[in-house]
Amino acid sequence: MTTTTTPAQPRNGVDVPTLFATIDAVKGDPEIAAFQFRVRNEWLSGTHSRSEYHDFFGAKQEMAHEQVTVVESDHPRVLVGADHAPTPVEYLLHAIAACLTSGIANVAAARGVTLTRVSSTVTGDIDLLGILGLSDHVRNGYQQITVTFHIEGDADDETLRAIVEQSRRRSAVYDALTNPTPVHIEVVPG
Amino acid sequence: MTTTTTPAQPRNGVDVPTLFATIDAVKGDPEIAAFQFRVRNEWLSGTHSRSEYHDFFGAKQEMAHEQVTVVESDHPRVLVGADHAPTPVEYLLHAIAACLTSGIANVAAARGVTLTRVSSTVTGDIDLLGILGLSDHVRNGYQQITVTFHIEGDADDETLRAIVEQSRRRSAVYDALTNPTPVHIEVVPG
Repeated sequence: MTTTTTPAQPRNGVDVPTLFATIDAVKGDPEIAAFQFRVRNEWLSGTHSRSEYHDFFGAKQEMAHEQVTVVESDHPRVLVGADHAPTPVEYLLHAIAACLTSGIANVAAARGVTLTRVSSTVTGDIDLLGILGLSDHVRNGYQQITVTFHIEGDADDETLRAIVEQSRRRSAVYDALTNPTPVHIEVVPG
Repeated sequence: MTTTTTPAQPRNGVDVPTLFATIDAVKGDPEIAAFQFRVRNEWLSGTHSRSEYHDFFGAKQEMAHEQVTVVESDHPRVLVGADHAPTPVEYLLHAIAACLTSGIANVAAARGVTLTRVSSTVTGDIDLLGILGLSDHVRNGYQQITVTFHIEGDADDETLRAIVEQSRRRSAVYDALTNPTPVHIEVVPG
């Protein structure tokens, strides 16, 4: 098992000294931690829409990503869409995989573990009787989501499992899915 | 206000007759409604990872999207990432916007309302004291998500608002965020 007393150094592509310095900076000024993420979405046709990511707020200032990212969603033809892009619910699966994976890389680096592979498959089981309005007993969302990680690095199985567990404990997306998140909807007609 | 007794016809890019026929088919054989969506994610470096969408299960068979879609996530530089792509939590914002918007188009079409514009902005407020492990009282996920719709069509404000509300009531992503979704994590080390 790799020692955790190695001096902080970049590992797994994570700049560990800067990560620790950032956490110290937030400790000294918790207001830095108030972030707001944003997306703008435009309906295109049918079930097809497009979102753009650019700006966000954080560290007490307006900020922007280094590039604009565009993503789209649609329904597949079996659900009467044109299948231009993944469905909205499929983006939840990317979100949970990516959030846990970034946490795994950070936690491993902080613990002095060098990773050589982290891959995952995510499945989401959903019964469309809910969204089709055909059952009052079936929920609209996923019945369950399962994330299966394959993880390799210079540590024993127990250490690798503990890294995944710590990532789960601090995952924003895991929390957003497993606990209720307030969603407010405002409508400006006309 | 537009009448809702117009014979079903394509509207808003929605093939309404096929939509109704699909709902009838599921009524006759509810097993059609059991879907499983999937994503495969690979860690690249640091907080950067990439997901691919292709296959899914539905209508009692293995199916595939007409194209493979690749999406990426990273953390911004202020959070010690390389900012190659939006953060994982930002994908939740696209998911809720796209899900509600596709529902709005479907519901409006089914009700005989022609839409000329649906756009939305979504904001997600998050206090990073949670994920940074600096507070036991701050949740890891969003404190709140706000979706603001601008919607235009050949119906009065009340009708347009009712379409958004019906979309919310049958939204898979709205349910997945506002109610607990079971997320199971499995680890295969080595």
